[in-house]
Amino acid sequence: MTSPDDIMREFGFDLVATSDRARLGRMRTRHGELQTPAFMPVATQGSVKGLTPSDLRAAGAQIVLANTYHLFLRPGHEVVRELGGLHRFMRWDGPILTDSGGFQVWSLSKLRKISEHGVEFRSHVDGSLRSLSPERCIEIQDALGTDVIHPLDECLAYPATSVQTERSLALTSRWLRRSMEAHRRAKTAGALFGIVQGGTHEDMRRQAVEETCTLGLPGYSIGGLAVGEPKPVMYDMTELCAEMLPRDRPRYLMGVGKPTDLVESVARGIDMFDCVMPTRNARHGQVFTADGPLIIARSRYARDPGPIDPECPCEACRQFSRAYLRHLFAARELLAQRLLSVHNVTFYLELMAAMRRALADGTFQAFRGRFLDRYGAGATEEEAGSESDVDGSLNETA
Amino acid sequence: MTSPDDIMREFGFDLVATSDRARLGRMRTRHGELQTPAFMPVATQGSVKGLTPSDLRAAGAQIVLANTYHLFLRPGHEVVRELGGLHRFMRWDGPILTDSGGFQVWSLSKLRKISEHGVEFRSHVDGSLRSLSPERCIEIQDALGTDVIHPLDECLAYPATSVQTERSLALTSRWLRRSMEAHRRAKTAGALFGIVQGGTHEDMRRQAVEETCTLGLPGYSIGGLAVGEPKPVMYDMTELCAEMLPRDRPRYLMGVGKPTDLVESVARGIDMFDCVMPTRNARHGQVFTADGPLIIARSRYARDPGPIDPECPCEACRQFSRAYLRHLFAARELLAQRLLSVHNVTFYLELMAAMRRALADGTFQAFRGRFLDRYGAGATEEEAGSESDVDGSLNETA
Repeated sequence: MTSPDDIMREFGFDLVATSDRARLGRMRTRHGELQTPAFMPVATQGSVKGLTPSDLRAAGAQIVLANTYHLFLRPGHEVVRELGGLHRFMRWDGPILTDSGGFQVWSLSKLRKISEHGVEFRSHVDGSLRSLSPERCIEIQDALGTDVIHPLDECLAYPATSVQTERSLALTSRWLRRSMEAHRRAKTAGALFGIVQGGTHEDMRRQAVEETCTLGLPGYSIGGLAVGEPKPVMYDMTELCAEMLPRDRPRYLMGVGKPTDLVESVARGIDMFDCVMPTRNARHGQVFTADGPLIIARSRYARDPGPIDPECPCEACRQFSRAYLRHLFAARELLAQRLLSVHNVTFYLELMAAMRRALADGTFQAFRGRFLDRYGAGATEEEAGSESDVDGSLNETA
Repeated sequence: MTSPDDIMREFGFDLVATSDRARLGRMRTRHGELQTPAFMPVATQGSVKGLTPSDLRAAGAQIVLANTYHLFLRPGHEVVRELGGLHRFMRWDGPILTDSGGFQVWSLSKLRKISEHGVEFRSHVDGSLRSLSPERCIEIQDALGTDVIHPLDECLAYPATSVQTERSLALTSRWLRRSMEAHRRAKTAGALFGIVQGGTHEDMRRQAVEETCTLGLPGYSIGGLAVGEPKPVMYDMTELCAEMLPRDRPRYLMGVGKPTDLVESVARGIDMFDCVMPTRNARHGQVFTADGPLIIARSRYARDPGPIDPECPCEACRQFSRAYLRHLFAARELLAQRLLSVHNVTFYLELMAAMRRALADGTFQAFRGRFLDRYGAGATEEEAGSESDVDGSLNETA
């Protein structure tokens, strides 16, 4: 099941139960176990915006995601290494997954030049000329000391022609082989997942999954979705990839998604997710509830003594009224961003926990129906438009 | 000792020990006791920026200050009353002191027109025309339900001539009498303190103290200092007022100050303080230590694995390195503002606790000398300039 490399790196994955395509699993890393399906709060620059590690634990986080591109530029991976690695630097002692930075190079930096060797770009922080290669990406993640790492890949804009997609896939595939070589040389780097690209072309996706899976990697990440394509296309591509990926390895759908996307993607066989929505939308005043999202700034909440969501166990819901949170948000108080973020992250993690319980009980399909009915009714009634106003595409660009 | 009004309102003050002019005391309010000298973190709009009530408790806060002007404009005192008062609204169950809003009218609003009746001004929030009178100020604070309240006063700019000061003092004095009338009618309003103005004119200050003290109020607040006058003048005026004020009532020095000001003012007989410095300077990256303030953004801290202050018990110092906090600050992460604020508020409250212990032990004068030597050496060595860069005048204008 696991290769010698994986054992050395203390990584493993076990499937515990299934319900149709949905999966309950357990992942082992050198920083502890986690249960899947799992959502990873996003600590872009080594901090989930506004939250401490103990807030994250209280919210139910098992694993967080950090960003190779951002930490490479600031404070620099050598600084993080010198300070004992990212776990020690940010004081999160659970598992950390890092992406390769490929997506951020494409979405954030200017004047990028792509070649067989790698990519040259100007830092969005200070405009300096920087470069990343597959080898350097592994070296950076090795310095960070994270538990699951990713190879440099090319992220295509949506839409892309099949000629563009084919050329890009071939490059990503060559880069993956170089990454694996570098990973073998790096003594302490975490488990290397393969990224499946292929845009929205079925045949390209199939080809990408096949080529990546022959390499026998410890996990597989589905990239290049939630970048502006229609929702049915995203679901179809997710389903197509998940069906082809090996049963005994975890599948991570990168940068997804909204609460309904999480439920629909778990139903299609996905095990891991990350998204900036909970924290970013909180900063814009959108909070999630079992009855759909709501915009806390609305005047109807000005005298509302109830919590955001009476079923939520978070600090914001246990302690504060909608009226107070609305006031803090309107008055641009720091505490609003913190408390709304705590709530949204808790909502996401509670949703994942509820899905895991339903999978363990064999009631996932019923849970899925109930959740979508209730959440969707709230969302369509009056807030669905606002949700997408706040957050057009799910993947982070800042 | 206490008037019938005070007893009804459950307010009291006992002097426990003295050391020269410095005083150790105990204050009773209907939301519990506190020990003086006490520092009040500033919850301008009903929130100490970035901190929850449980953070404040952990930092050692006994009482907080809120702002009548700000809460009157947003969310409005009627909203706060409807939601059960300010304690319940912001979930702080300890004592709350409110100022009258006089200072904010002068420093924040535009087009103000002052008359015998009160003051008309344009809201800094939405430009609407608003007015405050002595009676309305009491009514607002009654709605907020705070424990110590203040009368509307006129705050003079520094410098002011003695003619201006005399005219202003007379108005403040007439407004105080109207405030006391309104306070007698308000059934639930907290203990009304008298504000002593008088600018930087010794004779005016003496006159102000004499006139105010004849009214037999439960406590006295020294206003109109820390508004740009030289430090020796502030200390002299503080000493002059404190010497004349009755021994058996608490003295509150409004809007002061830096750590050294707190020690020097306690030495001159002050019992209570408030200042936005701990939170505002934190947001600008200045943190306080026993060896003087430091600017966390400095490159020398980029690889510093130690805490801000090894003697500090706060969450930021127990958990995180200077290197990590510097990174968060440089990367403009929300968590930087939160953690640096937690540290600075804790530093201020620990300083007050240390002064109280020294007063109880009879070692206050030795403590004062040691603190000033050590803190001052750090401050003058290299950070004193930065401290005043970050914060020119102590009193808040936003």
